[in-house]
Amino acid sequence: MRASLKDLENAVNQVKLLKKDPGNEVKLKLYALYKQATEGPCNMPKPGVFDLINKAKWEAWNALGSLPEETARQNYVDLVSSLSSSSESSSQVKPGADKEHAGYGTLVVTSEDGITKIMLNRPTRKNAISTQMYQEIILALKAASQDDSAITVLTGNGDFYCSGNDLTNVTDTPLGGIEEKAKNSTNLLRDFVASFIDFPKPLIAVVNGPAVGIAVTLLGLFDIVYASDRATFHTPFSHLGLSPEGCSSYTFPKIMGPTKATEMLTFGKKLTAREACAQGLVTEVFPDATFQKEVWTRLTAYAKLPSNVLRISKQVIRNREKEKLHSVNVEESSIIQGRFLSEESMNAVMNFLSKRAKL
Amino acid sequence: MRASLKDLENAVNQVKLLKKDPGNEVKLKLYALYKQATEGPCNMPKPGVFDLINKAKWEAWNALGSLPEETARQNYVDLVSSLSSSSESSSQVKPGADKEHAGYGTLVVTSEDGITKIMLNRPTRKNAISTQMYQEIILALKAASQDDSAITVLTGNGDFYCSGNDLTNVTDTPLGGIEEKAKNSTNLLRDFVASFIDFPKPLIAVVNGPAVGIAVTLLGLFDIVYASDRATFHTPFSHLGLSPEGCSSYTFPKIMGPTKATEMLTFGKKLTAREACAQGLVTEVFPDATFQKEVWTRLTAYAKLPSNVLRISKQVIRNREKEKLHSVNVEESSIIQGRFLSEESMNAVMNFLSKRAKL
Amino acid sequence: MRASLKDLENAVNQVKLLKKDPGNEVKLKLYALYKQATEGPCNMPKPGVFDLINKAKWEAWNALGSLPEETARQNYVDLVSSLSSSSESSSQVKPGADKEHAGYGTLVVTSEDGITKIMLNRPTRKNAISTQMYQEIILALKAASQDDSAITVLTGNGDFYCSGNDLTNVTDTPLGGIEEKAKNSTNLLRDFVASFIDFPKPLIAVVNGPAVGIAVTLLGLFDIVYASDRATFHTPFSHLGLSPEGCSSYTFPKIMGPTKATEMLTFGKKLTAREACAQGLVTEVFPDATFQKEVWTRLTAYAKLPSNVLRISKQVIRNREKEKLHSVNVEESSIIQGRFLSEESMNAVMNFLSKRAKL
Repeated sequence: MRASLKDLENAVNQVKLLKKDPGNEVKLKLYALYKQATEGPCNMPKPGVFDLINKAKWEAWNALGSLPEETARQNYVDLVSSLSSSSESSSQVKPGADKEHAGYGTLVVTSEDGITKIMLNRPTRKNAISTQMYQEIILALKAASQDDSAITVLTGNGDFYCSGNDLTNVTDTPLGGIEEKAKNSTNLLRDFVASFIDFPKPLIAVVNGPAVGIAVTLLGLFDIVYASDRATFHTPFSHLGLSPEGCSSYTFPKIMGPTKATEMLTFGKKLTAREACAQGLVTEVFPDATFQKEVWTRLTAYAKLPSNVLRISKQVIRNREKEKLHSVNVEESSIIQGRFLSEESMNAVMNFLSKRAKL
Repeated sequence: MRASLKDLENAVNQVKLLKKDPGNEVKLKLYALYKQATEGPCNMPKPGVFDLINKAKWEAWNALGSLPEETARQNYVDLVSSLSSSSESSSQVKPGADKEHAGYGTLVVTSEDGITKIMLNRPTRKNAISTQMYQEIILALKAASQDDSAITVLTGNGDFYCSGNDLTNVTDTPLGGIEEKAKNSTNLLRDFVASFIDFPKPLIAVVNGPAVGIAVTLLGLFDIVYASDRATFHTPFSHLGLSPEGCSSYTFPKIMGPTKATEMLTFGKKLTAREACAQGLVTEVFPDATFQKEVWTRLTAYAKLPSNVLRISKQVIRNREKEKLHSVNVEESSIIQGRFLSEESMNAVMNFLSKRAKL
Repeated sequence: MRASLKDLENAVNQVKLLKKDPGNEVKLKLYALYKQATEGPCNMPKPGVFDLINKAKWEAWNALGSLPEETARQNYVDLVSSLSSSSESSSQVKPGADKEHAGYGTLVVTSEDGITKIMLNRPTRKNAISTQMYQEIILALKAASQDDSAITVLTGNGDFYCSGNDLTNVTDTPLGGIEEKAKNSTNLLRDFVASFIDFPKPLIAVVNGPAVGIAVTLLGLFDIVYASDRATFHTPFSHLGLSPEGCSSYTFPKIMGPTKATEMLTFGKKLTAREACAQGLVTEVFPDATFQKEVWTRLTAYAKLPSNVLRISKQVIRNREKEKLHSVNVEESSIIQGRFLSEESMNAVMNFLSKRAKL
């Protein structure tokens, strides 16, 4: 049964009711299918290389080639339908006895047994960090720093820990143009990293699967990092024309020595969990089958220690570095801002996105 | 044959003749047995939580329950007898050809083949560091820095390397009250750590068995750390309501990365010798059966190198950090002083001591 | 067939035509054989301990004992002959398609596929760094920093990576006397190390065999260090009465912790490639049989990344340390200069050289 024009119209209205932003990649797909369904194959002239948003739209539409209008219409309706159902189910991720903090669209935040758990919750996007998620993590850390929990945990929902910065953030260019965008992105990144530097209690990463980019570099600011043996650690900055962030240009050489840090940060070498542990980035690796059980047993015991002492102990160990880390963060952010505007990086990012769109 | 009242009286006089302080824990035991032997079960009202010394005495006496007076008398006499004999034998620990330095009550200090060896010598107390031992180690390091040896070694007599700060130091509160006590203890700790920071020659730890607390944290200031595979490394500061010292909040993150340092210093994770070596805290691990032989063979060879060059080499490597380490030591000590006075820590320490007294 | 007096005369002239300085050790040998061939056994009075150059000559001649004049003559002619042929063949080391940079006597420098390779080329001297080689490496790094390559590689020709400072440099004392010599050597060393600190692109060590002294300590300034499992790492400074250089007193404790750094730098412990990798000095170890193939495959891939990004990434990671490293270099050099003039060191070096001369 083929979708009718009425089905298409209903689907268009349904999109407006989605509780969560489906992300730029999906929006590009919807745009392309809608154009294909209503106007046929791409008829726009190809935009210039710096007109990022129109270039991305053009590429998405153009990638559909000569797909028949009826098929495009059906695909549009199916895609919207899948989005609506995943949007409903995702709010049921954690129905347990935990106290769940309301008001987050991209996270599930719960508190129990002296532990506040912040779970990245965009599993279908491999927990890529959208602009909204950056903002919500900052808020969640702020709240956790003031609640009565002893320790705070960051983890991911689904197969991935976190696939890093959502690159479709980059194509989501609004009014002010590219320079404004680069400035805003960099400011958000800087504030995001600063909220990890300033976090006053023990902060623990429970790395349930692959980690990419900023999700890796930030680990140098955590107090404990437990990883499943399924986890991998990958920072392909140079491949995207970018430079290291998250204070990793400072923390990684201290943790693993400068040459192993360079092979990761400059040359994008991907590490297994065991390699990352041997190099000091990960505190301990657990078999995936028993990962959650072993880690939470240990964390529950740790959270029983006097919370006041844990806070003081963290601060004795970390405060001495705080000022230095903030200055590194500012420096790295300023270099990244320049990189965002380089043609080298723009081309690399657009290549990456258009390759993915064609899959 | 039961001990007579005359035996008790003799034993009381024998205590006064002991060459070495038997430690607060033994003194509490003697106090309790004497009271039980002469007055029967504990009849004092329980002292308040801040009256540390009387609370400790009360707990020691009360722990004896309804032990008959005759049994208490016999136990007192037996305990004194064991103390007298161990006090005599301990001065015969090292009858060899070494030049033994006289005048130490808690250490055996010898010099031979270009090596000055400082051996902690309270084996029945697992080489816990009493106030006297803190002071004597400071003196022994001062002397070793000026003698003609090439290298200096710290090690323990018996099964333990060192069980850390003797917590009964804490209950030994005199005239000035708790605040005065906390201030004095902290000043002594700070001066003790400073004497390791300033030590001008290669300083080698020969870790013959378990190490606890300050005996572990200080390892970050040694130039080589050899460990028997029987050794373990444990810093349960948070469990006692305390914070890290010995410059470990600075040296440990540099040596093993911040997350492995936090799991030890903040969460009290105990390491085996092999784990401590993998993390860089220990230079090399040896099987216990051949530990002493292998280590001393190597050290004897090292001590043949020109002593002037060894001193210069250590200083090129270490002097750059000295000022920083002194400031870390002052900072850590000041935080510890606050911790000593916290109810959290007092309760934790008293719990620990009274549990041990009941064993 | 014995060499005639005419053969000797020809050989003497041939020495003057050698394209490359044969090194001080060979020159001493030539001196000794010539004297023995023309004057018989050593007839000079033994020079004083501080008259380094004459003492070295005397020792070389004296070491020949009662070697007959004819044999000495023959040995002289043979030695010159071997020098002439090795001098010719050495310029044919790399006949491939690479662009070879002309004008180096002790190096072979080539550029291909985005990689500039600087190969130490005194294989018969285990690539010991003569005064000329120090100067040429400084020039080659300067040129590589300005060419269009993405990465720069340092490696050794033959079985050794590099046996460190050519100790016969020390005996090569000219006009100004020992103090002048010590000052000049130290200034050259300082400038040499500075050229590594300042190098602006990723710098990779391909350690094909044993590394000694300055060739080891400099590794702390490289961005990647790949080693064959045949490689060893040895810094016998104290044995020669010397102190650490190449910024190793700062970089080694950061990389491997202070105690493992001390066992290498102060006590001269030699590491295998696997040990050096476990301690973070080496990035990765490869089996010797596949070493060149695996390493160059990987480097060729790395060199394809955008060179501008690689340069920026290195600088984000390294620039923060530059000022500190320069001050460490100045400090270490000044201490070494004092060491060069110490009798302790002079005797140790001369012992080493005369032992070798007698082999």
